[in-house]
Amino acid sequence: MNTISPRPVDAVISAAREFLGDRLSLNATIREQHAKGEDNTTPTLPDAVAFVETTEEVSRLVKLCHQHEVPVVPFGAGTSLEGHVNPVRGGISLDLSRMTGVLEVNADDMDCLVEPGVTRQQLNEYLRDQGMFFPVDPGSHCTLGGMVATRASGTCAVRYGTIRENVLGLEVVLADGRVIETGGRTRKAANGYDLTRLFVGSEGTLGVVTKIRLRLHGIPEATSAAVVQFASLEGAVRSTIEVMQTGIPVARIELLDDDMMAASIAYSKLEGYAPLTTLFLEFHGSEAGVKEQAEAVEAITAANGGTGFQWASDPAVRAKLWKARHDSYWAGVASKPGWKALTTDVCVPISRLVEALVGAKQEAKELGHATCIVGHVGDGNFHQMVLYDPNDPQGLERAWDMDRRIVSRGLSLGGTCSGEHGIGLGKREFLEREHGVEALAVMRSLKAALDPKGIMNPGKMFRN
Amino acid sequence: MNTISPRPVDAVISAAREFLGDRLSLNATIREQHAKGEDNTTPTLPDAVAFVETTEEVSRLVKLCHQHEVPVVPFGAGTSLEGHVNPVRGGISLDLSRMTGVLEVNADDMDCLVEPGVTRQQLNEYLRDQGMFFPVDPGSHCTLGGMVATRASGTCAVRYGTIRENVLGLEVVLADGRVIETGGRTRKAANGYDLTRLFVGSEGTLGVVTKIRLRLHGIPEATSAAVVQFASLEGAVRSTIEVMQTGIPVARIELLDDDMMAASIAYSKLEGYAPLTTLFLEFHGSEAGVKEQAEAVEAITAANGGTGFQWASDPAVRAKLWKARHDSYWAGVASKPGWKALTTDVCVPISRLVEALVGAKQEAKELGHATCIVGHVGDGNFHQMVLYDPNDPQGLERAWDMDRRIVSRGLSLGGTCSGEHGIGLGKREFLEREHGVEALAVMRSLKAALDPKGIMNPGKMFRN
Repeated sequence: MNTISPRPVDAVISAAREFLGDRLSLNATIREQHAKGEDNTTPTLPDAVAFVETTEEVSRLVKLCHQHEVPVVPFGAGTSLEGHVNPVRGGISLDLSRMTGVLEVNADDMDCLVEPGVTRQQLNEYLRDQGMFFPVDPGSHCTLGGMVATRASGTCAVRYGTIRENVLGLEVVLADGRVIETGGRTRKAANGYDLTRLFVGSEGTLGVVTKIRLRLHGIPEATSAAVVQFASLEGAVRSTIEVMQTGIPVARIELLDDDMMAASIAYSKLEGYAPLTTLFLEFHGSEAGVKEQAEAVEAITAANGGTGFQWASDPAVRAKLWKARHDSYWAGVASKPGWKALTTDVCVPISRLVEALVGAKQEAKELGHATCIVGHVGDGNFHQMVLYDPNDPQGLERAWDMDRRIVSRGLSLGGTCSGEHGIGLGKREFLEREHGVEALAVMRSLKAALDPKGIMNPGKMFRN
Repeated sequence: MNTISPRPVDAVISAAREFLGDRLSLNATIREQHAKGEDNTTPTLPDAVAFVETTEEVSRLVKLCHQHEVPVVPFGAGTSLEGHVNPVRGGISLDLSRMTGVLEVNADDMDCLVEPGVTRQQLNEYLRDQGMFFPVDPGSHCTLGGMVATRASGTCAVRYGTIRENVLGLEVVLADGRVIETGGRTRKAANGYDLTRLFVGSEGTLGVVTKIRLRLHGIPEATSAAVVQFASLEGAVRSTIEVMQTGIPVARIELLDDDMMAASIAYSKLEGYAPLTTLFLEFHGSEAGVKEQAEAVEAITAANGGTGFQWASDPAVRAKLWKARHDSYWAGVASKPGWKALTTDVCVPISRLVEALVGAKQEAKELGHATCIVGHVGDGNFHQMVLYDPNDPQGLERAWDMDRRIVSRGLSLGGTCSGEHGIGLGKREFLEREHGVEALAVMRSLKAALDPKGIMNPGKMFRN
């Protein structure tokens, strides 16, 4: 008699079917859609995909996985750039994208409570007629749950902070299915360990975020944009440093290097600009305030070799400029038809930004790589896109090698391998070098304390 | 033959003498000075006080304490209001007040690296001629190490954040003597668990902070202050909510209730003000910006019943106003000669602030308590001083009872028992109610993971 002993995951699937019904899917196409994010990693299939709709369902499912020691891999919009959602050890892909409720909006307290599948665009659409907005804006259509998991930021972090500063509290399903609330509704608290910040950036390795309380901000009375160009990277970075030192509350200060600007001029039909290093700025405040900010920035940039300062308060012009900035990834890819891109995410102290940018650019040129750069320069964070030919058998590996060089330079300048994309699979090799053996051991001991069976997004962040 | 078996602490004292010499003190007066903070707790003596001067000394001493299972109680300036520094189980009081080095100041990155014994006043004195300042300003002459430990804030948190938002990284001696660095020099990072935020607010229960990297801010071009008075608490709080919603970047917005204003007029010789609920404001920005902010606030307060709006850009007038605000604790105490004060620290969502303040005030009156209130109202945080007669045998106990009622009301309004003073001994009873059984269990599991022998500031935060 032939018997095949059942796999642990089969027990989970069979029990979960009882409360999820056909929202627990074994369909091949659906499993493939949950095999990787928007990154260059190798896809790995989950055994099943669970489309959960409530905290209770998450809790019951995670409890089953805990009991049977089956991996749980949270999945939002699948926009990870570092392999966060790949089920590298199989198990259940926990798809939270149907949890899209905006549960509360409190105008007096300027906060809201949302489910993790809400995207930032959906939230801002919802808030628009209430005079408030949520300022953390990664480039992709990611979910707020994914943003919490990866400690995301974007172009407005220089003024409004990253998601770390804008999360007031969380509801989290722990690795054994228990449900906790962290943080609270107050703007500050000195009331025990900061569990909220422990889960923000934990990349699904400590628990599943099922509710998020966010700080909101008032839509400013006036908004204006400006563009200024430089013959050198140094002038643009020096300008940024002085703007920050002077305390001008710029809402955005973004750098495009000459290659990226050339690509964006072609892709986004930006007329009247030269293919030079360029700063895109945005100012939020009162009518008089944004004018004053723009004038102060113009003076600083002029003193650092900036030319052609253009100020745009017309919404249509502003929208075109920022669409061009947000499309820069696609502009970069389009600059080499048929090629693909690997995107780095180094962040350095702003004083070392020129060295990081100029050094990485020069090394890439010497090694024959086509690269272009966008940078959240107010934060010292930049994305150097390394373009590669997918038909070249060594193409991706060579791009990874260049990525490693860019990161190594960043680390040697006191920086980090990731400003906002997270560690996932792709950056694990740098974590020990960055934090040291003992600090990494502390992180592992926290993981062991909260997920003793190692079922929460295993294989991510740490190399085992 | 009579033998007394040696206590574990004697082994630590004898070994630590070898590298600390007479900086390890058994002197009775010195031990008494380390028996409590500025609070109303019962003093408890440490077995010895160690005046450490280097990270290496801290590490060696903590390692010895770990080996012999002897409690370690970090001590800075001794300004705790919640019993944080009381060696309730004896052991070593680890006095870090001699570690006062400002190790680095980086103007381009606007950060600095300091030792934990530096006070915020010392740091700002040091920075003054460099055009930068550190904005987190608790009322007392506390050390930055103590501020990190208690997640402190102050009057400027509404604009610049609490110490949580202003710490970039830490050096920490763990419970077994290992030394780690957390965070880094970059303004943001998505590179693993947020160990920095785990230690900020951990009240010495997870490790000893031996270095602190802080974000600095540019001294604003212009500063001005304003005072406005209200016939009711409601008008003042409603004004605050509208100022926040409008996004006016007030640097400070502080409330004194009628009783506190009366006390401050008497104590600080404030002329020209009535004993009414009062908002003290400060504006930071450009010359035109602070004027615009003041005008916008005046319009909002006038619409909410504010009267006598006075604007002061004269530094001497501003200094007198803010000295009066900072001296309000002493003004409150002086309002009842010979009496003492217990200070509460409730923080609520700002939409519930009127209920919290009016309710607590009324209940205090009904129970025959003299109380006066100062509030960081932009954050929803207020300190209600409960005055008591130290010669009344029931005086302190009655004040504690009132404190509990104020906290209970705050919790029922979605608030926290502590906005900025921390848990220590005094607020432990509220922690489970505030976070729930399971979240508190998670905190305990983190404590167990990082301090398995329970030597780090035992008896604080958790009731065992």
